[in-house]
Amino acid sequence: MVYLEFLGFIAGFFSTIAFIPQVYKTWKTKAAKDVSIQMFILYIMGNILWIIYGVIFEKPAIYVTNIVVFILASIQIILKIKYDRTDKTTLK
Amino acid sequence: MVYLEFLGFIAGFFSTIAFIPQVYKTWKTKAAKDVSIQMFILYIMGNILWIIYGVIFEKPAIYVTNIVVFILASIQIILKIKYDRTDKTTLK
Repeated sequence: MVYLEFLGFIAGFFSTIAFIPQVYKTWKTKAAKDVSIQMFILYIMGNILWIIYGVIFEKPAIYVTNIVVFILASIQIILKIKYDRTDKTTLK
Repeated sequence: MVYLEFLGFIAGFFSTIAFIPQVYKTWKTKAAKDVSIQMFILYIMGNILWIIYGVIFEKPAIYVTNIVVFILASIQIILKIKYDRTDKTTLK
């Protein structure tokens, strides 16, 4: 059973770190035109609910990973808005 | 307790449908240059482990949502590879 819970931990680890390469790519290339902002907004809405769920059920694996993703997804949204605006200004 | 499990279901719903606008955007614009393929590969690795976890613990909410995201993320990877290749060919 402990080994199986560990499987959930590893699964959560991948779902969490997955957001790092996207944030890094956007920050590095200063472009996020092709990235859907709706995706990250919907994902954050899910995150908030998962954090509440994890806190109520006292499951740190759920709320800790979701707080990390919440931060990464928020950075992604900010970068997306910032670079989309720069992109438009450059085109003018 | 039933209401709280429903909270998990709604949370899972948002995390799952979040992938739809990204797949739709890529399919519509035929461009995914700014999208990180690593993000979706890592996410799929998490998905596979969550599916195993959900099946073992008999939690349909976990494995059903992860199967849906697995399909959407796979489509995103295929579209990304396809349009990145087209992009390069056009540039030549």
